Amino acid sequence: MEEELLMIPGPVPVIPRIRETMARPMIFHRGDEFAQILRESVEGLKNVFQTKNDLFVLSGSGTCAMEAAVGNLLTRAMGARAPELTVVTVANGKFGERFTEIAERYGGPQAVTPLHFEWGTGIELERIKAALESTPNAGIVTMVHNETSVGILNPARAVGKLAKQYGALFVLDCITSIGGDEVPVDEFGADIAIVGSQKCLGVPPGLAALSVSEQAWEQIRANPSRPYYQDLVSHKKSMDKDQTPYTPALPLFYALHEALKIIAEEGMPNRIARHRTMSKAVRAAITENGLTMFPKLNEVSQYSNTVTAVNMPVDKGISDSELRPGMRKRGVVVAGGQGDLKGKIFRIASMGNITSADILKTLEVLEEVLYEKKAITRKGNGVAAAREILT
Amino acid sequence: MEEELLMIPGPVPVIPRIRETMARPMIFHRGDEFAQILRESVEGLKNVFQTKNDLFVLSGSGTCAMEAAVGNLLTRAMGARAPELTVVTVANGKFGERFTEIAERYGGPQAVTPLHFEWGTGIELERIKAALESTPNAGIVTMVHNETSVGILNPARAVGKLAKQYGALFVLDCITSIGGDEVPVDEFGADIAIVGSQKCLGVPPGLAALSVSEQAWEQIRANPSRPYYQDLVSHKKSMDKDQTPYTPALPLFYALHEALKIIAEEGMPNRIARHRTMSKAVRAAITENGLTMFPKLNEVSQYSNTVTAVNMPVDKGISDSELRPGMRKRGVVVAGGQGDLKGKIFRIASMGNITSADILKTLEVLEEVLYEKKAITRKGNGVAAAREILT
Repeated sequence: MEEELLMIPGPVPVIPRIRETMARPMIFHRGDEFAQILRESVEGLKNVFQTKNDLFVLSGSGTCAMEAAVGNLLTRAMGARAPELTVVTVANGKFGERFTEIAERYGGPQAVTPLHFEWGTGIELERIKAALESTPNAGIVTMVHNETSVGILNPARAVGKLAKQYGALFVLDCITSIGGDEVPVDEFGADIAIVGSQKCLGVPPGLAALSVSEQAWEQIRANPSRPYYQDLVSHKKSMDKDQTPYTPALPLFYALHEALKIIAEEGMPNRIARHRTMSKAVRAAITENGLTMFPKLNEVSQYSNTVTAVNMPVDKGISDSELRPGMRKRGVVVAGGQGDLKGKIFRIASMGNITSADILKTLEVLEEVLYEKKAITRKGNGVAAAREILT
Repeated sequence: MEEELLMIPGPVPVIPRIRETMARPMIFHRGDEFAQILRESVEGLKNVFQTKNDLFVLSGSGTCAMEAAVGNLLTRAMGARAPELTVVTVANGKFGERFTEIAERYGGPQAVTPLHFEWGTGIELERIKAALESTPNAGIVTMVHNETSVGILNPARAVGKLAKQYGALFVLDCITSIGGDEVPVDEFGADIAIVGSQKCLGVPPGLAALSVSEQAWEQIRANPSRPYYQDLVSHKKSMDKDQTPYTPALPLFYALHEALKIIAEEGMPNRIARHRTMSKAVRAAITENGLTMFPKLNEVSQYSNTVTAVNMPVDKGISDSELRPGMRKRGVVVAGGQGDLKGKIFRIASMGNITSADILKTLEVLEEVLYEKKAITRKGNGVAAAREILT
């Protein structure tokens, strides 16, 4: 079976150098060799996060780490008792809303002030400020930095500053930005920041990492109802011995360790520049082909530098059921819309190990399908525009 | 670096045929190819579990699935409100007690009746019966089938029958028995049964699977406070489309899929016989060398068929700090005791891909170390006794 080019926002393609590490034999997970892998991986991730906070790697997906963040901070208060802290969940896409769902599981609806914006529109700082002022005990703000579901980059620095002004902890999902975009976690004031393995880090899916600030620890330690598998106090206790509290997914740690070497070799500034150039090239091709970007930006939001969300050009006579299968038949998988956006957008990732050649191939295949369905009258313009940016 | 022989109760050695699958490229986790891998893996696991119940694979360790079981069944009731169900946690080792810890996180201490026996001693059915009679709303019984921490096999069938008599759900941790020992999950009356990937299945760590009965579903569906990442209702909804709710740890699924083919090729009856013979051989060598088994069996308990726990022969002049490092220097890693048993026992696994040759090598190395420290006067007796059983 021929290998497909995965241009979805995770799992991204994983290069052989990383994949092949996973064929290595198992090692003793309480021994020195694993301790070194874990220690070096945590150090490498701290550099990528630009953080001096504690950092942990969980054997689970990004959602596992999102739950770890909320569940460790938010004391469960089912029934009548008022929650100790409430959460303001800022959302303009699927993953932002996931924080609302998780917080409601832990604290009940009374613990959550959902601050939801139309998917793909820029979030408004004034509304966050108003919510922080009017919500009793507002002690946590959650937001997704790079909202993959809609291709928008949210203003982490500004929201982090607001949270601090109101004495709230700031939980920032950077699952699809850290490792590909500029994410100075400590500068952003993120008390918990999260990354997923299968995105900009270029590792297979199955691991997530999160950083935890001193202020977050105060709340976490006082919380008697922390989840068990994701209990950050247990993780911290084990990390003091360079171990994980439960058996780690060894092959994925081998892969992470290798990927972090590759990231160090490339250098984060180069890596960020590469991601920005690739996404800029995608946007140029989209515009050149007469398609339109899905996000409606405002003054504090930007297009994502790791995934591009494009309106499905149904007005040009091509639908999701033609566009994506048409591309896939030619060996390229792009993502559709999620939830209510199903059929209305498609998304092209430019993350992790994805190369300029992958971008050009994807855009070429996109143009072929658009041309075949007469949605464009000439092939090559988009690819040319992208190539100019990439070279 | 030379490969060590891992004779610990997980992660077990993984043979190249399984490991090499993990070097495969990533695939689209919402596409047909992954759907087939997942569907076939679930079918294969149902055969190994001997269950007709629903079955799910989680991207996480065995503990992740233990929490899934308790957290989905037990409604959180922090504070004053009485819990809807209470749990009787039967424990004679570390992992049995883990269920108590998890249940207390979810239901608070008032939701748990810990029924703890001295580690390594046989559990007593009468005490379970008494607890079920006297505990108000006792609706869940948890037990570990094969208690790895002490090398004992607990009477799953009898406890399952008791639970049913009292109308309680039965949660059975078979993390280190399923795939290596006879575990007819439905016959045992296990409403939730759990396996870990890195034990008898011979897969790397990072996955766990659990089966869920109709009776368990009734309780789970009515529970508003299910964990999020391990929400079994979400898993069921996704499994209807042969998907997982969150991005699966793809390489580990490749490995699981291949391991299940190997298990089918070997045949479960042969596989169980192999595990029993291997552990019998270990026990014979232990006895032949004048060492003693740690578990104190009663009429309803047996020695584990997948891991052997041996009293540290300190009376013969050798300590844990000599025995295990001595063996490791010779390339064999065995496990020590956990918690209060640290220094008091050592444990030899005979799980998954471990072969008769591995068993013999381990016993040979053990004898070398014992002989060197003058804990035995003659080498070869134990190995000879084991070889006789293995051939």
